[in-house]
Amino acid sequence: MNFDPTDQDIVVNADELREFASQLYQEVGVPKTDANAVAHLQVETDLRGIHSHGTRALPGYVRGILAGNINPTPNLEITRDGPAFARVYGDRALGHVAGKFSMELAIEKAKTAGIGAVGAYTTNHFGAASCLAMLPLEHGMIGFSTSTSSRGVAPYGGKTRVVGNNPFAYAVPAKTEPPIVLDMACGVSAWGRIGTMRLYGKKLEPGWVLDEDGKETDDPNKARVLLPLGGPKGYALALAMDALSGPLTGMGATVNKKGDLPLDKQGSGLFFYALNIESFVPLDEFTEEIDREIHELRSSPPADGFDRVYFPGELEAMKQEQWSADGIPLHRDHLKGLADLATELGVPVFWQG
Amino acid sequence: MNFDPTDQDIVVNADELREFASQLYQEVGVPKTDANAVAHLQVETDLRGIHSHGTRALPGYVRGILAGNINPTPNLEITRDGPAFARVYGDRALGHVAGKFSMELAIEKAKTAGIGAVGAYTTNHFGAASCLAMLPLEHGMIGFSTSTSSRGVAPYGGKTRVVGNNPFAYAVPAKTEPPIVLDMACGVSAWGRIGTMRLYGKKLEPGWVLDEDGKETDDPNKARVLLPLGGPKGYALALAMDALSGPLTGMGATVNKKGDLPLDKQGSGLFFYALNIESFVPLDEFTEEIDREIHELRSSPPADGFDRVYFPGELEAMKQEQWSADGIPLHRDHLKGLADLATELGVPVFWQG
Repeated sequence: MNFDPTDQDIVVNADELREFASQLYQEVGVPKTDANAVAHLQVETDLRGIHSHGTRALPGYVRGILAGNINPTPNLEITRDGPAFARVYGDRALGHVAGKFSMELAIEKAKTAGIGAVGAYTTNHFGAASCLAMLPLEHGMIGFSTSTSSRGVAPYGGKTRVVGNNPFAYAVPAKTEPPIVLDMACGVSAWGRIGTMRLYGKKLEPGWVLDEDGKETDDPNKARVLLPLGGPKGYALALAMDALSGPLTGMGATVNKKGDLPLDKQGSGLFFYALNIESFVPLDEFTEEIDREIHELRSSPPADGFDRVYFPGELEAMKQEQWSADGIPLHRDHLKGLADLATELGVPVFWQG
Repeated sequence: MNFDPTDQDIVVNADELREFASQLYQEVGVPKTDANAVAHLQVETDLRGIHSHGTRALPGYVRGILAGNINPTPNLEITRDGPAFARVYGDRALGHVAGKFSMELAIEKAKTAGIGAVGAYTTNHFGAASCLAMLPLEHGMIGFSTSTSSRGVAPYGGKTRVVGNNPFAYAVPAKTEPPIVLDMACGVSAWGRIGTMRLYGKKLEPGWVLDEDGKETDDPNKARVLLPLGGPKGYALALAMDALSGPLTGMGATVNKKGDLPLDKQGSGLFFYALNIESFVPLDEFTEEIDREIHELRSSPPADGFDRVYFPGELEAMKQEQWSADGIPLHRDHLKGLADLATELGVPVFWQG
């Protein structure tokens, strides 16, 4: 596998990017601890190659703070609380801040209850679902995360933007191998990925999107309506994920978000659970079984055009390892967005090019 | 929508089918309460149009009991127990029996803990995932169910039967509308559906299956390897569902099930959770939001070739209503399988044709 930069990329050091990102957040009033936490999760996302959901989203978040839509100093409040559940009022926090708080609460509950389920409302975009789902891993737990979305996907049998492209993630610990990590949305693609393909001037695959007339197109610039993954399956998955993150947290269903919304109904609802493996079986028994599974997958015969079979999350872990050492290749337009913002805020840019 | 019988179907009364199915189970030693429960779930499955997973599976289950692989009188045992979790030893029970027991335990735990997560091991096929996921609905809860599977799906980038086609379901209550129900497996199709298409002499769609040489085929008789839904997404979903139902319950990963297995590692691992809506938000607020969502979906413009947009579970609910009144159309080969078994067991057949 080749994770080397293209001629449109600039390679940046992960630690420097983390420090830089944190400074930008602090510059607009985010307390240092929160700024570091968000910067850490976003650079982790870049390191895993999910560029659409990492620091590329940072300027949007910071401008959201400057516009008064995102609260840099939220008072997160637990408004419902019980043995294995909680509901968290996000006070228009950055999604990463409310998300990390909620998942850590879920982890605490899972330690004694076996599972902890926590919903957060009145908060914002949480980046890559996987980076929050992975927080329970170091506690010997399985993590799950999902979020509401905006109306952008056609229902199965429909042709307009009605359903969300609700992202969700599962993270499952192995023993000596990297974790198995699922990170997906319910459309055929993610909007962020379509943006990345626009950035690199690539065509979309057939069956991905409709244009504004409800006709299929392969031009990322004309993409208006995403199609659901596998028709009825992706459609149903989106509604299930939305029920957990929207109606259950009190944030409301994505499908119902039309017209002007009050400030507390804008943004995202988030839902998490952490599942304590030791409650069910000895942790080593579990993680050794996952290791065996990974070896079995790797040794299975590849299809034509593939060098071998990878497990979900493996390529991301390989990128993370290589890019932590060698630097992260980021598209120059991605870095230009960060540089423009830094200049506005008086923060020095640390890369050349 | 037309749910009328084809010329290959025979229409049977649901109550009579339920009574007949229960008698067949009792005939091979299943206690009356369990026999009624399994028959009820299987006829419910037929009523919802999921014929591949309803009474068509009954002869296989009964022959499994006669062969000694399925235990008609299991001692279900709670081997791990806590505030929001439990692990259930299935003693080679019918999957419906262990599944209903486990989900009911999850519901009890969710009443106080907010969520209850229960895994069952050393049990068997539980039929349609949705019929168990729907049990929490009448308690004002969201239900989730999943199961291990057999090696039948190619990993993304592979071409042989390595991964399971793990089924899973979510059920979400509405107020005046039927529930939103997702019921899917992680392959492009379910093996049962391929069996149904073989029964009706239909061709498979492109991209569904590979033959024994790893080449694509549209002939249901040549189908040997299922492809995962949406490539890497279905592949990752299968492994996530499997981690919950296999390694977490102690049943082991489907991917690792090769060669001869000890009796207690044959069959299925099952995983369920019930999520108590009232722990998070007032139940009426939640269900009214889901009703609004359903109305919004129904009123969205249909794509070419569709009469209108349906929500997931809506067609199933419509079938259930119509067929409860008018009878269930079942393929004559499906009924012949039941009739042959009934003749062997000395149980009278109640339908003509």
